[in-house]
Amino acid sequence: MINQERLAQDFNVMRGITAPGEGINRLAFTDSDWEGRAYLMRQMEAAGLTLRTDAFGNVLGRLAGKDNSLPAVMCGSHSDSVPRGGNYDGLAGVLAALETVRSMREDGFQPDHPIEVVLFMCEESSRFSAATLGSRAMRGELSSEDLQHLHDKEGKTLFSVLKERGLDPENIAGAKYTQPLKAMLELHIEQGKVLEHEGIPVGIVTGIAAPARFYCDIHGAADHSGATPMPLRHDALCAAAEIILAVERAAGAQADPPVVGTVGVVDVTPGVMNVIPGDVSLGVDLRSIDANAREQVEQTVRSEIEAITRARGLRYEIRPVSKESPARMAPALVDLIAAEAEKAGIPYRRMPSGAGHDSMHWADYAPTGMIFIPCRDGISHNPAEYASIEQIVTGVQLYSAVMRRLAVRGEDIS
Amino acid sequence: MINQERLAQDFNVMRGITAPGEGINRLAFTDSDWEGRAYLMRQMEAAGLTLRTDAFGNVLGRLAGKDNSLPAVMCGSHSDSVPRGGNYDGLAGVLAALETVRSMREDGFQPDHPIEVVLFMCEESSRFSAATLGSRAMRGELSSEDLQHLHDKEGKTLFSVLKERGLDPENIAGAKYTQPLKAMLELHIEQGKVLEHEGIPVGIVTGIAAPARFYCDIHGAADHSGATPMPLRHDALCAAAEIILAVERAAGAQADPPVVGTVGVVDVTPGVMNVIPGDVSLGVDLRSIDANAREQVEQTVRSEIEAITRARGLRYEIRPVSKESPARMAPALVDLIAAEAEKAGIPYRRMPSGAGHDSMHWADYAPTGMIFIPCRDGISHNPAEYASIEQIVTGVQLYSAVMRRLAVRGEDIS
Repeated sequence: MINQERLAQDFNVMRGITAPGEGINRLAFTDSDWEGRAYLMRQMEAAGLTLRTDAFGNVLGRLAGKDNSLPAVMCGSHSDSVPRGGNYDGLAGVLAALETVRSMREDGFQPDHPIEVVLFMCEESSRFSAATLGSRAMRGELSSEDLQHLHDKEGKTLFSVLKERGLDPENIAGAKYTQPLKAMLELHIEQGKVLEHEGIPVGIVTGIAAPARFYCDIHGAADHSGATPMPLRHDALCAAAEIILAVERAAGAQADPPVVGTVGVVDVTPGVMNVIPGDVSLGVDLRSIDANAREQVEQTVRSEIEAITRARGLRYEIRPVSKESPARMAPALVDLIAAEAEKAGIPYRRMPSGAGHDSMHWADYAPTGMIFIPCRDGISHNPAEYASIEQIVTGVQLYSAVMRRLAVRGEDIS
Repeated sequence: MINQERLAQDFNVMRGITAPGEGINRLAFTDSDWEGRAYLMRQMEAAGLTLRTDAFGNVLGRLAGKDNSLPAVMCGSHSDSVPRGGNYDGLAGVLAALETVRSMREDGFQPDHPIEVVLFMCEESSRFSAATLGSRAMRGELSSEDLQHLHDKEGKTLFSVLKERGLDPENIAGAKYTQPLKAMLELHIEQGKVLEHEGIPVGIVTGIAAPARFYCDIHGAADHSGATPMPLRHDALCAAAEIILAVERAAGAQADPPVVGTVGVVDVTPGVMNVIPGDVSLGVDLRSIDANAREQVEQTVRSEIEAITRARGLRYEIRPVSKESPARMAPALVDLIAAEAEKAGIPYRRMPSGAGHDSMHWADYAPTGMIFIPCRDGISHNPAEYASIEQIVTGVQLYSAVMRRLAVRGEDIS
């Protein structure tokens, strides 16, 4: 049985563990983050887990199975926050895993497979401008050189920060996780409005979208806004406006699998009232859990950019920023979660995750799944981030049921 | 006869009178501006003009007429520049007036009316954030308090700057011009592309457009760009894009009398790749020489803003910045300039001035006219600003012919 009061208590304690400032401030590897980690480690030990930490500071708490030669079931999330963040992003997933193993013991449930509860370090990119670093360390994707290059705003390298925490950055390769896993499961707040909008308590993630990002630089002519008749203009901003709407239209037309497209950045030169914009840069972000669908939308957008600028007699360049691969959640695990939700009478929907999570690094290592719970107004990374304890408990109950299924020998989700 | 070599020589000397930096740097009341003024005053005196200056530093050079009880014909322009400006904006009009009075004397032409050549101070808004201050002082529109409020980027008030130049800001009211005028004539580079585009050497200005400016603030929801499906978005930038195109469309549809509409300023909040723009501010500039036509376009744009934001479920506010009155050039003077152009076989077109000029302050005082000459690529306020000496001479020849007509008693242009 999931204990609502105990769960609420953990959220309350963690709410108090923050650096001064509005909302939650547990920036990775700062004192408040470390204090939160220490609290969670104590709870993990109290829940009967055997703890170990790796060179990056990730905490792994193992619950023995009846047969410890079987591959473990991994679960967990992170507890660091952005500056002025909330108390649910990450933490809800950590406490879901913690409460699940507590409840197993109380219920006398003994897993066949060992269970590996992981507290991932440094999931947020706020401090070192790179996200999910703990997971990347465990996947062997971080070198000692990377740790020297990554630094915070004060210029402090991640390497020296790890040193100060008594960790072992020289031996970062030793953080690589190499044991067999049966599955990986993570619970997280949605950080979007879909569940709340539809009044559905649980989302089953089908894949984690990855962004393709580029800048589009449009070059027109910066003429006098009073002295240049409309037909003689080469207004880079008017072309940019058409492109912004083309991005919206192209992404909106690709609904299944969905693609989202956003222009979030607009730089206008010279950017004054009495000069026609001569140059405009747009920052374009396209995401999908389906790389092909995303690619098609990108090609549509690029063709429109070509046509729009040609029609207006303008020049343009595309500057690619990044193109990451989406992560697919394991279909059999998605189905298993859905079956458990139906069994418990919990309405659910399958949905993509637009934001990145630790889980995306595990999808090519083991069958990986994620459960979303709603958050108010879809707000996250903000002091207003909120999920009610009832919403959390519903999610954790499903999460716990799924973990128990996974912990049983013979349940095949590969 | 207009002397091309002498005219070219004046441009060359003035090109050398500039503060260091690319292009021409004769910011109002700086040493280089003052040195240029001194050079031009010497040339005016050498041309036989009797000089006086007013409390603001404007230079008035009078050529006696046969009958000095007749109202004077005013002519002239300014010689200050923007930072990194060109050597033609303003100066071409000053030298046109100077060369005209020189040529009159050489040709033995004696005006019936006295001629008043004016070198207007501080036409550019670059230093004190307000344009045509010399003309405004002469029209009695500047108070001593205004001079205390206007200041440059270093915080120096216009009042103290005038003091340092030995001028008389306490007595700014004394700068008011109160004598009768028969007409005012100014030559200026077009600062636009129309003449060059059409291959026409001379423009006869029918009116000087005035801007109506406002900010439009659009309020949507700043959601996660990955986690928010397209149908759930309230993207302030997509609405802004529609508004930018609505401004272009509404102004383009109003061709006679023409209205131009420009969105030159876009501020996006938060302005990052991974957040849907929650708030966007647009700076809108509408201009026409016809206040009614401009007002109609503004009403169309406002209706579209209302409809666009309503359709997207967004809020908006309009923050008016300014709404100035256009100045009409005197139709009889426009006709007189046209008649002289035809007589000389100089192709011309009637056209509005999109930019502001000293002349706009004289249109309600006396019949006022302007002659435009082309400038390369329409570029102005830029080191690349250029008009060939041949283009200038053609304009000055017409200007001189018109001045001579105006200087004759009985030529009625009222």
